[in-house]
Amino acid sequence: PKMKLPGQEEFEVSSACENVPTGELENGPGSCPSPDGTSDTNRGDRGVPTDSLLFIQLNELLGWPQALEWRETGRWVLFEEKLEVGAGRWSVPHVPTLALPSLQKLRSLLAEGLVLLDCPAQSFLELVEQVTRVESLSPELRGQLQALLLQRPQHLIQPTGTRPCQGSAHPREASHNEEAPLKEQRQNPLRQKLPPGAEAGAVLAGELGFLVRPLGAFVRLRDPVVLGPLIEVPLPSRFFCLLLGPSTLGRGYHEMGRAMAVLLSDRQFQWSVRRASSLHDLLAALDAFLEEVTVLPPGRWDPTARIAPPKCLPSQHKRLLSQLREVKGPSAQHGALAEDRHGHWPHAPSPELQRTGRLFGGLVQDVRRKALWYTSDFLDALHPQCFSAVLYIYLATITNAITFGGLLGEATNGAQGVLESFLGTAVAGAAFCLMAGQPLTILSSTGPVLVFERLLFSFSRDYSLDYLPFRLWVGIWVATFCLALVATEASVLVRYFTRFTEEGFCALISLIFIYDAVGKMLSLTSAYPIQSPGSPAYGCFCQYPDLGGNESQWKKTEPKDRDDISSMDLGLVNASLLPPPECARRGGHPRGPGCHIVPDIAFFSVLLFLTSFLIATALKHVKTSRFFPSVVRKVLGDFSSVLAMLLGCGLDSFLGLATPKLMVPSEFKPTLPGRGWLVSPFGANPWWLSVAAALPALLLSILIFMDQQITAVILNRAEYKLRKGAGFHLDLFCVAVLLLLTSVLGLPWYVSATVISLAHMDSLRRESTACVLGEPRSFLGIREQRLTGLVVFILTGASIFLAPVLKFIPMPVLYGIFLYMGVAAISSIQFTKRVQLLLMPAKHQPDLLLLRHVPLSRVHLFTAIQLACLGLLWIIKSTPAAIIFPLMLLGLVGVRKALEWVFSPQELLWLDELMPEKERNIPEKGLEPEYSLSGDTEDSELMYQPRAPEINISVN
Amino acid sequence: PKMKLPGQEEFEVSSACENVPTGELENGPGSCPSPDGTSDTNRGDRGVPTDSLLFIQLNELLGWPQALEWRETGRWVLFEEKLEVGAGRWSVPHVPTLALPSLQKLRSLLAEGLVLLDCPAQSFLELVEQVTRVESLSPELRGQLQALLLQRPQHLIQPTGTRPCQGSAHPREASHNEEAPLKEQRQNPLRQKLPPGAEAGAVLAGELGFLVRPLGAFVRLRDPVVLGPLIEVPLPSRFFCLLLGPSTLGRGYHEMGRAMAVLLSDRQFQWSVRRASSLHDLLAALDAFLEEVTVLPPGRWDPTARIAPPKCLPSQHKRLLSQLREVKGPSAQHGALAEDRHGHWPHAPSPELQRTGRLFGGLVQDVRRKALWYTSDFLDALHPQCFSAVLYIYLATITNAITFGGLLGEATNGAQGVLESFLGTAVAGAAFCLMAGQPLTILSSTGPVLVFERLLFSFSRDYSLDYLPFRLWVGIWVATFCLALVATEASVLVRYFTRFTEEGFCALISLIFIYDAVGKMLSLTSAYPIQSPGSPAYGCFCQYPDLGGNESQWKKTEPKDRDDISSMDLGLVNASLLPPPECARRGGHPRGPGCHIVPDIAFFSVLLFLTSFLIATALKHVKTSRFFPSVVRKVLGDFSSVLAMLLGCGLDSFLGLATPKLMVPSEFKPTLPGRGWLVSPFGANPWWLSVAAALPALLLSILIFMDQQITAVILNRAEYKLRKGAGFHLDLFCVAVLLLLTSVLGLPWYVSATVISLAHMDSLRRESTACVLGEPRSFLGIREQRLTGLVVFILTGASIFLAPVLKFIPMPVLYGIFLYMGVAAISSIQFTKRVQLLLMPAKHQPDLLLLRHVPLSRVHLFTAIQLACLGLLWIIKSTPAAIIFPLMLLGLVGVRKALEWVFSPQELLWLDELMPEKERNIPEKGLEPEYSLSGDTEDSELMYQPRAPEINISVN
Repeated sequence: PKMKLPGQEEFEVSSACENVPTGELENGPGSCPSPDGTSDTNRGDRGVPTDSLLFIQLNELLGWPQALEWRETGRWVLFEEKLEVGAGRWSVPHVPTLALPSLQKLRSLLAEGLVLLDCPAQSFLELVEQVTRVESLSPELRGQLQALLLQRPQHLIQPTGTRPCQGSAHPREASHNEEAPLKEQRQNPLRQKLPPGAEAGAVLAGELGFLVRPLGAFVRLRDPVVLGPLIEVPLPSRFFCLLLGPSTLGRGYHEMGRAMAVLLSDRQFQWSVRRASSLHDLLAALDAFLEEVTVLPPGRWDPTARIAPPKCLPSQHKRLLSQLREVKGPSAQHGALAEDRHGHWPHAPSPELQRTGRLFGGLVQDVRRKALWYTSDFLDALHPQCFSAVLYIYLATITNAITFGGLLGEATNGAQGVLESFLGTAVAGAAFCLMAGQPLTILSSTGPVLVFERLLFSFSRDYSLDYLPFRLWVGIWVATFCLALVATEASVLVRYFTRFTEEGFCALISLIFIYDAVGKMLSLTSAYPIQSPGSPAYGCFCQYPDLGGNESQWKKTEPKDRDDISSMDLGLVNASLLPPPECARRGGHPRGPGCHIVPDIAFFSVLLFLTSFLIATALKHVKTSRFFPSVVRKVLGDFSSVLAMLLGCGLDSFLGLATPKLMVPSEFKPTLPGRGWLVSPFGANPWWLSVAAALPALLLSILIFMDQQITAVILNRAEYKLRKGAGFHLDLFCVAVLLLLTSVLGLPWYVSATVISLAHMDSLRRESTACVLGEPRSFLGIREQRLTGLVVFILTGASIFLAPVLKFIPMPVLYGIFLYMGVAAISSIQFTKRVQLLLMPAKHQPDLLLLRHVPLSRVHLFTAIQLACLGLLWIIKSTPAAIIFPLMLLGLVGVRKALEWVFSPQELLWLDELMPEKERNIPEKGLEPEYSLSGDTEDSELMYQPRAPEINISVN
Repeated sequence: PKMKLPGQEEFEVSSACENVPTGELENGPGSCPSPDGTSDTNRGDRGVPTDSLLFIQLNELLGWPQALEWRETGRWVLFEEKLEVGAGRWSVPHVPTLALPSLQKLRSLLAEGLVLLDCPAQSFLELVEQVTRVESLSPELRGQLQALLLQRPQHLIQPTGTRPCQGSAHPREASHNEEAPLKEQRQNPLRQKLPPGAEAGAVLAGELGFLVRPLGAFVRLRDPVVLGPLIEVPLPSRFFCLLLGPSTLGRGYHEMGRAMAVLLSDRQFQWSVRRASSLHDLLAALDAFLEEVTVLPPGRWDPTARIAPPKCLPSQHKRLLSQLREVKGPSAQHGALAEDRHGHWPHAPSPELQRTGRLFGGLVQDVRRKALWYTSDFLDALHPQCFSAVLYIYLATITNAITFGGLLGEATNGAQGVLESFLGTAVAGAAFCLMAGQPLTILSSTGPVLVFERLLFSFSRDYSLDYLPFRLWVGIWVATFCLALVATEASVLVRYFTRFTEEGFCALISLIFIYDAVGKMLSLTSAYPIQSPGSPAYGCFCQYPDLGGNESQWKKTEPKDRDDISSMDLGLVNASLLPPPECARRGGHPRGPGCHIVPDIAFFSVLLFLTSFLIATALKHVKTSRFFPSVVRKVLGDFSSVLAMLLGCGLDSFLGLATPKLMVPSEFKPTLPGRGWLVSPFGANPWWLSVAAALPALLLSILIFMDQQITAVILNRAEYKLRKGAGFHLDLFCVAVLLLLTSVLGLPWYVSATVISLAHMDSLRRESTACVLGEPRSFLGIREQRLTGLVVFILTGASIFLAPVLKFIPMPVLYGIFLYMGVAAISSIQFTKRVQLLLMPAKHQPDLLLLRHVPLSRVHLFTAIQLACLGLLWIIKSTPAAIIFPLMLLGLVGVRKALEWVFSPQELLWLDELMPEKERNIPEKGLEPEYSLSGDTEDSELMYQPRAPEINISVN
């Protein structure tokens, strides 16, 4: 199982976590097994005690000698926030950097100073008394020092959410108010961000001229207590550290204080120092810290530059293990290592994908497994988060229904339409949510099926078949084949669909989307031709029948060729310049080539098309920009296509031009005139067509199987931490049944759509609420239930009555959204990034993990082979044999198999994934040469790579 | 002078150097005073010996025990390049990171090992013999070890420029060829990148099982020699380090080898170890290195992440000083410190801006100063670089001439035009290049003057004046006023134009550009109306005169209202549907509202407008993308507007629509019909208008003074290292004379254009050729001469005969370029970035230096005041008093002065710059509070900030 990971490494090293739906990875940030284990309760049983989160604050003594005051100048949980004194604000959280000497000075100061472990002080006053009980201090100085320590520190309490300027001009002035010290602390918004049970550590440092020699003290309190106004949030303090001394060191105390704070914010050091029983232990923990620091050489790095928190934190495992080894011996180590492996290489085939060997064995198992959870599938939905999920997914679903409905209507000449799309989505989606194995998947029209239906329609038109009855038989056969696939447990074969196949599938469909969108757009310009100068097309007038049969005279001389009409001498006519409709009303006839031409539509359509495409793209990018509050950005980003569509419609109706619009029946009846809701089984077709339909049905079955199962695999990946398990066989069974139903009713065909299902999961994430100082939230799981999906589809069904409103949507806007979907899908796959590498000079290429391990020429060869396959598929798609393209897609699996003769397993490991049997056959040794060379460093490099789901693998 | 620096800090911390024309800053990268001083020869006389650049290579021993081989796995000059073993390529250069223990292990190995300083070995063989003369080795082992050391190492020699895949599939195979070892080294392209005199350091490290204890040796060769095939480039080696040992340490030798290489690549360590006389000195240098390292705590940073080389390197001064203190005592320190200060705060008013107090004193001084260089101004141009500069600036100049010519022609109703623009640019530009004080500035039409001319024209139209004679008098007066400004040495006042004024100036002009471009575009849609459905506009036919005076009958019944015509019954007419031109040719009359309407033009114009704007913007961004070789990117980026224009024209001529085109006279005569080349002094105007013209002339003088001098100040900034000095007074004098000349000839008015002049300087940069492993090139100066400019303008003059070709340029394309210019200019100023801050929640704001030092509310207040000023200026611009806007721009200086009551000097220091007298008045103490708090760290933060010229300060 170790083989599989690198295939899932994220492509771009620097943005390794960005494509991930924020942090749900087993070994990703936040959830990495860390000694504290606060975020993940089940970690405690691994033998590692659960420690509280520690908030560290540095109070500095400033203003020596005249105006001594304590001021909080830094705070830490994992990353550092520094007080920007001039600006009166906290800096952005950043990775703290230290100077090595300050750590060494701190070490010697601690070694000589006072160390109190398990100090029983119950208040700040007691603590101060304990700390100042040093021989070197005269009683008078001690009094002075105690008074100074008890002086109230200045905190900068910054309102979050609102801008500081709106609160008060100088937020720090708030702390001058001596009356309400604890109220201010209690109202600190930072408090909500810290998890319950968090403790504080206070570091007090500064220059104090009246001291003769430096004074260092480190205290661990036996029972943490709130030390009055010392900490900006009223947390019980566990650690207290005092670093004061004469002026000789200057800024040295500040740096030592920071060093102490950084030490305390290190989870490993915390772990040790909580268990330390002597000064020796404390210094040993400091030395252990020093052993593990990373060193940046001087002169090569501006030490004042702030390093942003990395998206992925290194695993704490190794550090944990070395600690455990000391404490518990090697037995504890082994268990942790096993879990480590599991955490990092979890891609062993999940139980759902293991063959039972019995007919319908998989289906039975699925039903049995899911039945246990059925009640909880409804109870678990009782959470406010589910409301917003419903709204979000509902909007996404109807956008999809409108777009695909419109396109299907056009592709099938009205045999399918927006009304069918709404009705079908509602019926099939709701039924699927009630029965399916994985109710989180959202059934929807998908690109591949749309492409197939288009081909099927043009095939049936070419052979003058009655489409809907023919389609019914195809549906019947597909359902039969799918049931056979369920019976034979064929779903376990999905493991042969490697990234190579997925990318080929996605790229082809995306290209068809892009090609179709642009093609349809251009076809509008032939429907609404552009008027070149000198073209006679604007000649038009209204001719009335002459008093005495002059009309017939016109007809006599009417030329065959349209162009001739303009040069023809009409002779004497009785005419006016009324517009054609008005002319007809008055009994005249519009004459001339310009009468049927609507000017300006062509270019306006191009404008609408580009506008909706660009706005959807731009809004998508707002999500990652710095502008607007997070909520606004999320709304703009998530609803980018809805908003782009609304804007396009607005622009269109503002100008009021006669652009081609979406065709919607005005009442609740099928779009195709004259048919009922049930499709007749034969219609005008010969009887044997019901048998012949098995052939296209075979192709469609392959397509549906691939489309459905690729989505299912992505959704059920281990990193989503699903508890209720998957149901590959049950899902396919449901799809087959619904396919039959929709064929009978003449509704579109549906399978699970990747993007919209992932969005559904994403809107149902459970996360730890604590999110402090630059740390990412930790991911707990998904609210797995059936209710949100069900409500979404009930709402979709209710929206059928919205349909008449939809006739205001111009087609060019839909094409623009379609183009956006194609471009977004193709941009998301690694293949596209590798194609881009072809255009980049080697030295400008990004620092990709892939390129670190595979020679560039081999990467290019792999890309070239993929391009060639794609070219071949495209050619087949353009021939009359287009309808067999699902078979060709399946052929990609064969090509991938053949690639094993061209590429070494190591190369395929980085460029793709390994196939099941290959994975078993290759000895682990097979990868050794590279690992032995690159060694430790590279190995850990692998470890930190999150397995990023490729969310846009299919066009939904 | 210390006050001025922060005002010039670059806004964005993270991209602090990006806007800089790559590295010409005194304290920027490459030219920072470094102990080696290789790039800057005049550093030697400061008492710091000039050391050679050191190229470090790490050869690792791999394959123990069966297949031992040496392989080069890393190389350093300042940054690290690592061998990607799997990929067979060098990594991108990055900041090396080390583990602290490896440095400590290295230290103890060196302390116990062999250290040979000034070893007299003359060949690799001798060196190997010396190194292996260790007691712990038996003679047999010694022989084995010697044979092993003499074994030829494997180098990965990567062809640069071309992609490795094109050269050979596996570049590293090349090194298997044993026949031509030195040829391969000599052909290494890396060799060209290293400066002459560079030396090498070789580090050999690895695991060698037959050794009983670790073997460490450090050798400094007395005379550097080429050590056979040891180093991948045939450089003489100065240092040699051997780190071998038994298997116990594992990867430890690799890490120790890296640590040694990183140490040797540190310039400070090099400096010390070149002068070390004992093991003690060597260890002291290592300890000094450790004192200065930056430490990243574990668990907060992925140690395998590669840190890109920073754009700005920290100054090496402090490190140098501490070294000098040890070696030479405090006297040397003082001199270096003085230069340091000069290097960092060079913004003392330059001698050209000091008042002489005599009439025309400044002018006389300028002429005297420049006369000395006049011959060299032509001789210095004899360099191939000047050819490409001419081509680049020529294209930029004619693009400008076309755009501004077209817009002026439209704004002045043909009084100015493209022909005048070409002629005037050529004449004025060439004359300026021959006479001016700063011949690097390119005279051109600029935005502010265009705006003024537009206002002047509409004023003269409103009062029915004869424009060109009136303009002549304005020109005469402006020349007089400018001469008066020269006489009184008014140019020294430019120091009162702080960033506040410059930004107000730039923002207003940019907004006018944007507003005008969009406005003119929209006005096209009223000239070419859009046809709504039902509009009768397409009614048109060709009516022939009736046999017996039927024509007059039409005229009799012709309605007043155009709309009526369509509903009117025409009765019997003799008609055809010929297009209007053809109809007229045959003696008929086109009849109907549709005859004069050209459809589709409105939307097509919008498309052209958007296309040219978007393409120009996109091409500009190509320059900073990863795609294409650098040359291609540079061409695409630099010629973005030319290419966008060409593409727009191509699209237009492809569709062949009757879009409005640039009006160009078909022969060489003034655009305004009926005028000669000399403007008559009075024309139809009353005589007193020649006196009254003094009033607008006063306003124009202010504008020209501001526009010219702001550009001059930017161009003559100290960071460009100009040797021949500026000529503020002489430049203004030349502008005045040329203004008179162009007024007499009726040509456009010209001043120096910022962007195009900066581009000129940029294309004439002199740089050191050495550019190794991630280090930026060092900037030596500019080829200051008069010839390139002169040739550019001669070519522009010759291009007048190109003018007839220009009539194929559609106006919407020009508007698009115009919009692009406005948007580019307004995006480049700090003001815009501060306005964006208003839209960002505090926690998402970028980590700007400004925000670290000034409270957000104060930043917003400053921005709000600027917005209010801009709003006021806009309102004035929209009233009939628009023509006085130059006076209002000058009023910005007053507002800025008043801001001193609202903001503290520290705040103004960060938000703007200080004004001259304020700068003198404030004691240095005034800034102390902040500095004392933020201390050392912040201070150095200031030091590393490059002074970035704001290149887009004015729209050219």
